[in-house]
Parts: sequence; structure tokens; C-alpha cells
Amino acid sequence: MLGEIIATGTELITGRVGDFNGRYVARRLHEAGLEVQSITMLGDRAPLLQTLLAQALARSQFIIITGGLGPTDDDITVAAAAQALNLRLFEDEALLARIRRCLGERGLPWEDRYARLAVIPEGATVLDPGASACGFSLKHQDAWLFFLPGVPREMRVLFDSFVLPFLVGFAGGGKYMRQRTLRLFGITETELQEKVNKLVDWQQEVCVGFYPNFPENHLTLTVRGQDPQALEDDLDRLTSVLGREVGEMLLGPETHSLEEMVGQKLRQQGLTLAVAESCTGGLIGHRLTNVPGSSDYFQGGVVTYGNQAKLDLLRVPGETLEREGAVSAATARAMALGVKEIFHTPLGLAVTGIAGPSGGSAAKPVGTVWIGLATAAGVEAKNYRFHGSREEIKALSAQTALDWLRRELK
Amino acid sequence: MLGEIIATGTELITGRVGDFNGRYVARRLHEAGLEVQSITMLGDRAPLLQTLLAQALARSQFIIITGGLGPTDDDITVAAAAQALNLRLFEDEALLARIRRCLGERGLPWEDRYARLAVIPEGATVLDPGASACGFSLKHQDAWLFFLPGVPREMRVLFDSFVLPFLVGFAGGGKYMRQRTLRLFGITETELQEKVNKLVDWQQEVCVGFYPNFPENHLTLTVRGQDPQALEDDLDRLTSVLGREVGEMLLGPETHSLEEMVGQKLRQQGLTLAVAESCTGGLIGHRLTNVPGSSDYFQGGVVTYGNQAKLDLLRVPGETLEREGAVSAATARAMALGVKEIFHTPLGLAVTGIAGPSGGSAAKPVGTVWIGLATAAGVEAKNYRFHGSREEIKALSAQTALDWLRRELK
Repeated sequence: MLGEIIATGTELITGRVGDFNGRYVARRLHEAGLEVQSITMLGDRAPLLQTLLAQALARSQFIIITGGLGPTDDDITVAAAAQALNLRLFEDEALLARIRRCLGERGLPWEDRYARLAVIPEGATVLDPGASACGFSLKHQDAWLFFLPGVPREMRVLFDSFVLPFLVGFAGGGKYMRQRTLRLFGITETELQEKVNKLVDWQQEVCVGFYPNFPENHLTLTVRGQDPQALEDDLDRLTSVLGREVGEMLLGPETHSLEEMVGQKLRQQGLTLAVAESCTGGLIGHRLTNVPGSSDYFQGGVVTYGNQAKLDLLRVPGETLEREGAVSAATARAMALGVKEIFHTPLGLAVTGIAGPSGGSAAKPVGTVWIGLATAAGVEAKNYRFHGSREEIKALSAQTALDWLRRELK
Repeated sequence: MLGEIIATGTELITGRVGDFNGRYVARRLHEAGLEVQSITMLGDRAPLLQTLLAQALARSQFIIITGGLGPTDDDITVAAAAQALNLRLFEDEALLARIRRCLGERGLPWEDRYARLAVIPEGATVLDPGASACGFSLKHQDAWLFFLPGVPREMRVLFDSFVLPFLVGFAGGGKYMRQRTLRLFGITETELQEKVNKLVDWQQEVCVGFYPNFPENHLTLTVRGQDPQALEDDLDRLTSVLGREVGEMLLGPETHSLEEMVGQKLRQQGLTLAVAESCTGGLIGHRLTNVPGSSDYFQGGVVTYGNQAKLDLLRVPGETLEREGAVSAATARAMALGVKEIFHTPLGLAVTGIAGPSGGSAAKPVGTVWIGLATAAGVEAKNYRFHGSREEIKALSAQTALDWLRRELK
């Protein structure tokens, strides 16, 4: 069973944005053992889309089309598809009511152009994820077509919940597939590949994919067989084998982010946390508070970008700042202790460093970062040297700080 | 003159890597006023490549093919192209000598498979950049074809030094194109399109593209004509017309992010800033500090996730928190004043709200956000009701707070 992806949007063929959707869908399908033979990107032009759809129908058993389903004039996918497939369009009343309800819930007024969103080709089945934009599927001759929104977040929900399960089941013919993506941090892709290659017997039973996902590395395990429970057991076993090989560099399955893992551990252990951020500028607090319910364990933090704030708020001794500098072990320790104290928390995490591009010196080049962690047992600081752009150094600093905390909370 | 891009490589259709080459070429061509109608990615499969080449020749005047020129068995581009175009292959002696010389210079031994690299279709012109891999060009019927290596670095050298200059000169024939992308915030895509439609005469002279770019909306204006300077003037005029229509919702050109704009204004006006974040958790500080040199005007901030921290650090009166609640005008004002005071800055920005998914009530549903801004002139608070996921509400809160500051600094 061969398929293809057609991604529409003028922003894609002007190089304005990368094609997130095509790559995401291709990767998911590949991991599931379904073969994509091409990904085509085109602008919002109906004649070319019609031509491409006709050509796709001649060679593919499934076609996933993203983009062009919105309410504006450059959203031409539905009309072009109806032309290409020679289908009539009709207004789906249930879909129209659903759109009215969603607008109402969001407090948005009705506008006539929204009616376009309810117009679909005859024979189409609406794919309704509940909370976000709909898509639709269509069987035409021997092919399945799936029309999904272009906004990546919306596309992903529909693809994951409707398209992938359908295609896997349809193509499966009795065989099941189970898949798990594992997240690793602190290991390069090459090192990871070498470790995996050592575990030779894997290659016979499992398909392994490597995906750099800055600042982490992800690894996907895919297994196939007759018994779904046996496949889950296989994945558990393979995860353990890998865990023994790479140790704490294995964060866990994709389902939980590092900040969620840290949050779970803090909650389980009844601990609370405060953070003092210099070069990360608030990124650690931002990541921690992306997790619902984080107010249970995250008390808050201080962003001390200037030295004065390190003195005033965190009570870092002026002598320390003068003698050791703002980017030093002593300052990181004092910041961690200071923030722990002013927020009355058992844990204080601090980061101070040089994100660049300026501000570096021979002794403390750009990318020099000190991380401090204060616990009931005392306070410790560690030194790192990161490489990359300003934003990459910030991201690596925040990730490394959260990862230290994760390991500490074992 | 219409063109298209065909990128070959199995890694592209398994989602393993993104298509750097296609996006790079598309962007460069678009900037140069040459229109790319599609980008197609496919695996290393000769039959499909032959089909796609034949289809491309039927609709495009230039075709750029990347990848599949190497010495290994999965490098199928040259053979597939010769088949599709019905051309004989021959061994180019000069190219063969060049390959032998390069291997020698690198101290690599000759291997028979390298002879493949010198086999090209009859009529092809070798594109030799000197230091790295070669490509070739070919005129077929009315179309120009360019075959480039798949390694991005090698592809880029050949594209920049041969393909782009050739196409720009060839297509030039008098007409130029200029383009500008504008960023807007606080207006829906639908509202924006209505505003643009009102300015009817636009549609005759300018091509308008809409690109949602959460939480902003982007709009691209493209103009074509004989005189490059007149086109720039056109874009200036169109930007002004739009600016009059949408007012402060127009942030400006794509080149500067909102945090950069705020930073520039703070720097110009010699002002410094501190932020007090509750529901945004550090996101505002993170965005501000993504800008190099932001330490000149951003002093830091406090993330007060719990009430105790609002009391202790920001000196929000306990009475205010008790009577009005943490998410209220009075608390937002007190937070803005408090952070301004403790960081000794002329400006204090504060956000307090309910990011959800829990924590809402009938009176203060999820998405209720108060933003406070303290300046030399006093302190003000504004109330918002955002919709979306927890992360979207955080993003909208941070963006709205920064946008208020931008407008205030006019």
C-alpha cells in the first residue's frame, strides 16, 4: 500500500516556512510501516492542485492533503478536490451547527464566510476532533483521501486520532503494530546509534528510528505481530534493555516532557521548588508552568539579569560577585540558596551564564554556564560549556538544570 | 516563467530530515522574483522520478533536481533523467579527469564506482564549482533542467553561483518583483482579510497572502513591475494604507520580533524594565532575553506563582489579595508597582491570570487575565479573556503584555 502527501500553502513554496505537516505525517506513517512515495508542496492554486490530485490517484492508495480548508479566499482545497474528483459540494448541516456552537463558545460573532467551512464534497465523512478544526475523509475509486487543516497543531490532532489508526488498521490485515518513542538527553546521535548497535538481537525484532530533537535525541521502536499485549511487553522489555545501556540519559517515553517528569517527582515527594534565572531569562519557569497543576510544587522564581538584582533580591554577597564574578560557582550557589530562602522552599535551582553572542572572555567564553542546586542536604554547583546560538545556549542551560533536578529527585 | 523543484532522497519521505534544499532554493528564487509552483520530494526510486520529470516538463520552464548524483547504487537521478528525456548517457572525459584529480588531492584511492560520477546525459553542461561536487544543466524542449547534489552545502554552492544568476538573467526580461511581509497582532485573519478587501484597488496591483502565525497574523504583499525603486515605493505606500486601516494592530515588517521592537524603543528612550509574572511563568522574561543585548534595558523579574510570593516579594497588600483575589485589577496594579520598585526601574509590567485547564470559576473563567503597567505617569490595569490551551493562553498573555508596552512606548 503506497501513499503520498500533498501540502498546500503559498508560504511553503516561497520558502517562508518549512513543511512541518508533510514531515510529521511522513514520519508517523513510516514508523507505522506505511510507505509514503512522495510529498508535494504547492501554492494556493486550484488548477495545479486538481492536476496533482488526479496524478496522485493514479499511483497512490492513500493521499493526505493538508491546508486550504479555512474560510478565506485563498482556501481552495475543497473546491479543487470536488473538481478533480468530479463530486458535487453540499453544505453539511451538522458541521454548520458545530461551527456556530464553537464560535459561540469562544465568544466570536457569526460571519457569513464561516459557512464555507461547512461545505464539503458529497460522500465525505467529517473528522471532528471535538475541540479544534475539522477535516474530512473520502473514498474515491480505490484510494482513500484525507483532507486536514494546515495549522500544524490542528493537523496533528486529526492525523493522530483518525488518519493513522485508520490506515494502520486498514493496511494491517491482522498484524498489529505498536510503537514507542523514547527521549534521551546528554548523548549524541552517534553515541546512541553505537549503543543500540551493540544490542544486536534488536535488529531482528524491532525497527529503530533515530530523530534528533534539539536539545534531546529521540529514538522510535516499532514492533509488529499478532498479539497486541505481547507487543507492549516487547516494548517494555526493549525499553529496559536500553535503559540498562544508557542509564540516566534515558528520560522516558515521549508522552511526558522533562518538566512533567520533574513535576511528578516533586509532587510524589511533597517538595516545592523556586528558581533563580540569569541567562535563561525565565525559560525554566516558563517550562515548569507549562504543566497544568504546576502551582502545587512550583512557588515561583526570580529573574536576576543585572547584578544589582542578584544582590538585592537573592542576597548574593557583593564580595562574591566582585571576586568571583556573576558567572561562577560561588554566585550559582548563592543564587540557589537565596531563592530557596526567599520562597521558603526546600529546593532552589539557579542558572547563571553567558548566552552570547557578546559578553564572553578568554577565561569565560560564550556558553560558560554555572548551575546551582540547593537542597536540604546542602548546595552544589556544576560548570558547563555549551555551544550554539544564544537561544540554543539558553535552551541547553534550562534543559540541563531541569535534568539535574530530575536525577536528584530519583 | 514558472519552475519547480524535485528533491530526491529516501530520508526526506521518511520524515527523518526536513527538506533544507527545496526550502532554500524556493526562498532564493522567490526573493529573486521567480515563481516556484511546487516542491516534490520522493525517495530514491527511478520510475517515480521519471514520471515526475515528465509531468514537470509539461508545466514548468525550469526544474531544479537535487540529490541522487553520488557514486552508490541508490543514486539513480542521472539514469532516470536520461530515460525520462530519452537521452543517451556518455562518460565525460574532462569530468572524469577532474574527479581523479580531486581524489588525488584528498589522498583518496581511485575506486571503479567513481567512474559513475562522470556519466552524464548528452547535451549536458557540467557545473563545476572548483572545490566541491559538480552538477549539470540541460536544456530540453523549452525547459531548463538543473541537476544538483543532495548534500546541502554542495547544493548551495552550485545553486548560488550557477543556477540563480542564470535564471535571474534569463527571466529578467524587464520585470522585477518586490515583496514585504507584515506582522499584525490583535486582529483575526478574517477581520484582516475584510479590511484588505475594502482597499479594493490593491487587488489590481498587488498580490496579498495571509499567513496565521500564532499568536500573530502575517500578511505578504508582492508587487511586480519594470522599476525596482518604484516597487519599493509601492510597498511603502501600501504599508501606509494598511497602517491607516488597522492602526496599531500593525506591528511592522517581519524582520523584527515584538520583543526586538520593544527592546529598540526602550533603548532609544533610555528606559529600563522589570516584569512580574504569574500565569506566564517566566515567558515574558524568556522572550525579552532572547534578544542579544537585552541586559541593557531588561533588569529582570519575579515569577510569583503563589500568593505568598506576591505578598513577600512584590509587596502586594494581603488585604488586596484577600478582597480582590490574585487575578484582579488591584493585584495586577500592585504587582506592576511592586516589581518597578524592587528593581528600581521606570517601568514595571505585570501579568496575573488563569491559564487553566483548572482554576477557573464562573466569575473568573479560565483565560481571565489582568495585565498591569506601571510607568512614571502612574499605573493602569487591563482585563482580557483569552481562549485556547494552557500554553496558548500563556502565549497570548505574554504577547498582549509586550504589545501593550510597545504601544505605550510609541
